[in-house]
Amino acid sequence: MLGPKVWSSVRRGLSRALSRTMGSWASGEGRKMDISGIYPPVTTPFTATAEVDYGKLEENLHKLGTFPFRGFVVQGSNGEFPFLTSSERLEVVSRVRQAMPKDKLLLAGSGCESTQATVEMTVSMAQVGADAVMVVTPCYYRGRMSSAALIHHYTKVADLSPIPVVLYSVPANTGLDLPVDAVVTLSQHPNIVGIKDSGGDVTRIGLIVHKTRRQDFQVLAGSAGFLLASYAVGLMSQGAIGGAWGCQLAGAVGGVCALANVLGAQVCQLERLCLTGQWEDAQKLQHRLIEPNTAVTWRFGIPGLKKTMDWFGYYGGPCRAPLQELNPAQEEVLRLDFTSNGWL
Amino acid sequence: MLGPKVWSSVRRGLSRALSRTMGSWASGEGRKMDISGIYPPVTTPFTATAEVDYGKLEENLHKLGTFPFRGFVVQGSNGEFPFLTSSERLEVVSRVRQAMPKDKLLLAGSGCESTQATVEMTVSMAQVGADAVMVVTPCYYRGRMSSAALIHHYTKVADLSPIPVVLYSVPANTGLDLPVDAVVTLSQHPNIVGIKDSGGDVTRIGLIVHKTRRQDFQVLAGSAGFLLASYAVGLMSQGAIGGAWGCQLAGAVGGVCALANVLGAQVCQLERLCLTGQWEDAQKLQHRLIEPNTAVTWRFGIPGLKKTMDWFGYYGGPCRAPLQELNPAQEEVLRLDFTSNGWL
Amino acid sequence: MLGPKVWSSVRRGLSRALSRTMGSWASGEGRKMDISGIYPPVTTPFTATAEVDYGKLEENLHKLGTFPFRGFVVQGSNGEFPFLTSSERLEVVSRVRQAMPKDKLLLAGSGCESTQATVEMTVSMAQVGADAVMVVTPCYYRGRMSSAALIHHYTKVADLSPIPVVLYSVPANTGLDLPVDAVVTLSQHPNIVGIKDSGGDVTRIGLIVHKTRRQDFQVLAGSAGFLLASYAVGLMSQGAIGGAWGCQLAGAVGGVCALANVLGAQVCQLERLCLTGQWEDAQKLQHRLIEPNTAVTWRFGIPGLKKTMDWFGYYGGPCRAPLQELNPAQEEVLRLDFTSNGWL
Amino acid sequence: MLGPKVWSSVRRGLSRALSRTMGSWASGEGRKMDISGIYPPVTTPFTATAEVDYGKLEENLHKLGTFPFRGFVVQGSNGEFPFLTSSERLEVVSRVRQAMPKDKLLLAGSGCESTQATVEMTVSMAQVGADAVMVVTPCYYRGRMSSAALIHHYTKVADLSPIPVVLYSVPANTGLDLPVDAVVTLSQHPNIVGIKDSGGDVTRIGLIVHKTRRQDFQVLAGSAGFLLASYAVGLMSQGAIGGAWGCQLAGAVGGVCALANVLGAQVCQLERLCLTGQWEDAQKLQHRLIEPNTAVTWRFGIPGLKKTMDWFGYYGGPCRAPLQELNPAQEEVLRLDFTSNGWL
Repeated sequence: MLGPKVWSSVRRGLSRALSRTMGSWASGEGRKMDISGIYPPVTTPFTATAEVDYGKLEENLHKLGTFPFRGFVVQGSNGEFPFLTSSERLEVVSRVRQAMPKDKLLLAGSGCESTQATVEMTVSMAQVGADAVMVVTPCYYRGRMSSAALIHHYTKVADLSPIPVVLYSVPANTGLDLPVDAVVTLSQHPNIVGIKDSGGDVTRIGLIVHKTRRQDFQVLAGSAGFLLASYAVGLMSQGAIGGAWGCQLAGAVGGVCALANVLGAQVCQLERLCLTGQWEDAQKLQHRLIEPNTAVTWRFGIPGLKKTMDWFGYYGGPCRAPLQELNPAQEEVLRLDFTSNGWL
Repeated sequence: MLGPKVWSSVRRGLSRALSRTMGSWASGEGRKMDISGIYPPVTTPFTATAEVDYGKLEENLHKLGTFPFRGFVVQGSNGEFPFLTSSERLEVVSRVRQAMPKDKLLLAGSGCESTQATVEMTVSMAQVGADAVMVVTPCYYRGRMSSAALIHHYTKVADLSPIPVVLYSVPANTGLDLPVDAVVTLSQHPNIVGIKDSGGDVTRIGLIVHKTRRQDFQVLAGSAGFLLASYAVGLMSQGAIGGAWGCQLAGAVGGVCALANVLGAQVCQLERLCLTGQWEDAQKLQHRLIEPNTAVTWRFGIPGLKKTMDWFGYYGGPCRAPLQELNPAQEEVLRLDFTSNGWL
Repeated sequence: MLGPKVWSSVRRGLSRALSRTMGSWASGEGRKMDISGIYPPVTTPFTATAEVDYGKLEENLHKLGTFPFRGFVVQGSNGEFPFLTSSERLEVVSRVRQAMPKDKLLLAGSGCESTQATVEMTVSMAQVGADAVMVVTPCYYRGRMSSAALIHHYTKVADLSPIPVVLYSVPANTGLDLPVDAVVTLSQHPNIVGIKDSGGDVTRIGLIVHKTRRQDFQVLAGSAGFLLASYAVGLMSQGAIGGAWGCQLAGAVGGVCALANVLGAQVCQLERLCLTGQWEDAQKLQHRLIEPNTAVTWRFGIPGLKKTMDWFGYYGGPCRAPLQELNPAQEEVLRLDFTSNGWL
Repeated sequence: MLGPKVWSSVRRGLSRALSRTMGSWASGEGRKMDISGIYPPVTTPFTATAEVDYGKLEENLHKLGTFPFRGFVVQGSNGEFPFLTSSERLEVVSRVRQAMPKDKLLLAGSGCESTQATVEMTVSMAQVGADAVMVVTPCYYRGRMSSAALIHHYTKVADLSPIPVVLYSVPANTGLDLPVDAVVTLSQHPNIVGIKDSGGDVTRIGLIVHKTRRQDFQVLAGSAGFLLASYAVGLMSQGAIGGAWGCQLAGAVGGVCALANVLGAQVCQLERLCLTGQWEDAQKLQHRLIEPNTAVTWRFGIPGLKKTMDWFGYYGGPCRAPLQELNPAQEEVLRLDFTSNGWL
């Protein structure tokens, strides 16, 4: 595997250099922030009494900081954000900002059910150091979340956010897919830079890439299970389309992958293999990551991810209730998904 | 229609008198609180600038207070609770307590995603005057909300709540049905008095009534659309089963009906017709309530309910974003569902 | 329990006498056929080598003939009709016609995927003795089965059928609910007499009863699990509405219940209790039938029903492949659903 | 675009030469049949009176025969097989066999609901000239279609089939995904050569490719919408894995694409671009095919596909009822999906 330095130059060659564009979008002069790359969605460590363990959080960050990630997602679904108070959410972002390498991006999940609360959380997260926010679709009233309602919600948030906004569609949790037509409309907003799409429907991802190709709009795969396929349908169009349409960031340009919390090197390697066109090796690696990825996402969820983190030298620890620890039988299945693919 | 007084005596004859058992359950000596009857799930009025309009809330309560409701549900799904801050949630409960008639029950929705937050909200709601709490199933991590996890959650909340707990299953919002086996286990907890079931599956309601028949456990239909059917599969068993098993509250004993916010007299009349065995008239009335009920629940949601409240002399007003107002075409359909059934 | 004779007079008092109206609908002068009552959906017995065992079929019919059923449904979902050839389907109907009591109705399932095939099967079934046909919604192309397509399908079939047509909606098998607006439109066809609705949504059933109240249209509950509730929302309206609107058959007037193949007396008793207004006893009986009913329908399907038939003195026998026999663990659970409710 | 000849040599270089292995599998000596390539699922033309129009079928085949397809799928979902009689199904296969080029493969859909009927149809289709059969999952009793039941079904069919069997999973029609564990087990059967997977879940496809990598098992994408992604996760592994494991056919090796009935050259071009590693051009082409593909599959179904065939110089014509023709508004949307992507 390449070291972080070489790696960084590889990425630079394939994608444009990072430009922190915080606050500049309103002027309309700058390009959108480049968010390409791999991000682990950081988990929130808890003590035995369910307090946030900021020390363990920082330890995990220091370990994760050695991989060539583009940055970190904080307060995504894997961060148990619905279980944290507002002040805990902000404190976690603040601590991660301090503990993580300076040259990486911090994407903070600021979604709430109401538009107003989301705006307030977004502003606060910018104040404590987030580079961009990732905003999950409101979902409790999913029956009323039409494209119009969602466009209104995200437009308001993006209008008032001091930092770029990433849309976040995660139907397994929300029961709601952000409709493609809403994504296309929102892609035209100067402060909306992309979408994290966790649904796994690569036809949909291809269509989003296609229909936003003139918008400097970026797609992050929301899971390692379809990372290669997302690169295949999205990434390579950058150059070609960039030339034709004058934008440089179109396409699936990365992933927010729970699995990167435990197999960080491997997920980054998969990114590199895709970016450098080594598709055969990429395939072989992708195949071996599917079962472990499924295990730490929808099969066993955060309790599975945290248990695996314990195995791999990180602090996983307990979840907040009502999430329950795995029972021994589940743990065995979880372990098998890693051993049978050669990772344990 | 009967006046509130006669009405009250009718109910007394069919069900036992209200005993406010706050705090007494732990001693194990008392019966569970009787929650039978009809409740409107109160909406939260907002000003044009999206502030809670406590004045309008009180006005609505005064108007609703004239109907023979058993009480009021505050901070249910129709109360837009996910859009309120914690302090707003408590202030609303406090104001309703003061504005509502003294002899009625106040059921307050205290559900949060985490067990700990739910416990805290529950305790606070008891302090500001709730008679019981209604606790919605946590749902963001629905893939991990097994019966075991949900039993753990509700048991913890019920153990620590100073007031009785009502389970709340509303799959249209949560994507999750509280499993029957979990309901049966939880029905044995001395501080869990019943369930509000909004799913509309009357086979399930019948089964819950049957399997909790020894537990003094009460079922409230979560919608006016299947109120008659819920009485039919649940209520009449009270006497018979009470005699046989020594409990008096088994069965579907009421409803939490959004429609009662606009057709309060009619929903109470339907209750009375069922309780007094006037099934033919009950049927005719039930049939005329289905379309209006569907319109103000899943078809047009809270925006539809609030618009209808405006028509019926209450303050409906706007919803908080991202909920959107109905467009004219939707309004027309909504109105037709009331006019075609003779209510407007 | 009442004997068949007394029973018959009870039914006569509540519903009009049977009038076989075969062929008369086209003249527009007669009322629609009365299909009120309970029907077991007859299973198709197979030998060990998967041949239809007509002898066992007749034996079962002779045993079932002693209960006060209104008739028999042949080639419903429980009859494994998708596994039979066209000639087997007709031969089974023919044999049942011969084996069953003369005064009972034979409803034959004639649904096929194409309209043309359904018409042909319908005509053939009339020729071999069916009194009416029950036509399941075509479903392989469910994405294209709009109300318009389904209205066209059923209208064609009803136009060309020499005997009355019963609509059949069974979403558990077809993934498709016949939309209420299509049902309402079709209820106006003189040769469409009712619907068997197996979805279990009693709000929907109430709405169908309400919106077809001027059409002499009858609703049969498709399962014993919500039979009482269906009577409660539908049946009693007959008299009142009949008086008002000049039709006599409106309302949920019966059920097609798999469970009646093994607990025939009990399902008929439940009907009688509902028809005579003995709701308390009806409730107690209904409650004890829910788990057994669930067990022989969606939980264990036809293999569960046939296994139970073996226990209750009928011939169940094997299913055709790919349906598999229950394993011992499943059998134990099945048995428990009957023993725990006092039926075994 | 390459002409058929050059094309053919490209394919030869990437995949092994076709070996018609009919009947040889039982000996255990030969490799499985190579089914790699693109197949249009042929539609069944009907006259205005809904008769099969064999003349138009042959005309369509002659036109389609000019493209570098690997072969034709007959009686797939797009062939309206559920609307044909058994003899029509066989006659269509027989006619296609005669009309199509000799060097192409004929995959015939032989699935029926019962195992026995499927076996019989399979044998008959072999007799009238099919090279392999494609067997859809039985689905009417989907609640009972466990992995065990499906493994039993397919094993029986494969045991008794004189020609190779391709599994066929199409959840949009059947409501059923053939479980991965069943696919893995069945991949070991010497007469089961692959699966047509129409679900569009590329993580699932990657996992199937991975877990069947030792089995000479082939995956055909069931739609043009995720064709590139399927090649990306599957195809390139052939060489590498072939070397390592001694099998040569592993991976996603083609597609059965409704869209190939109207944009045959383009779908074949997409295949070629993937096979030759021209990913940037492949992406651009794939992107432009997504909306047209969606339009002729789940959005407008066979009526949409046939209407488009009329536009592109083939005979589309009417569908059999209950499938309905598109209305003018739908036609306009359909046309827009082609014009906006530059195909009309």
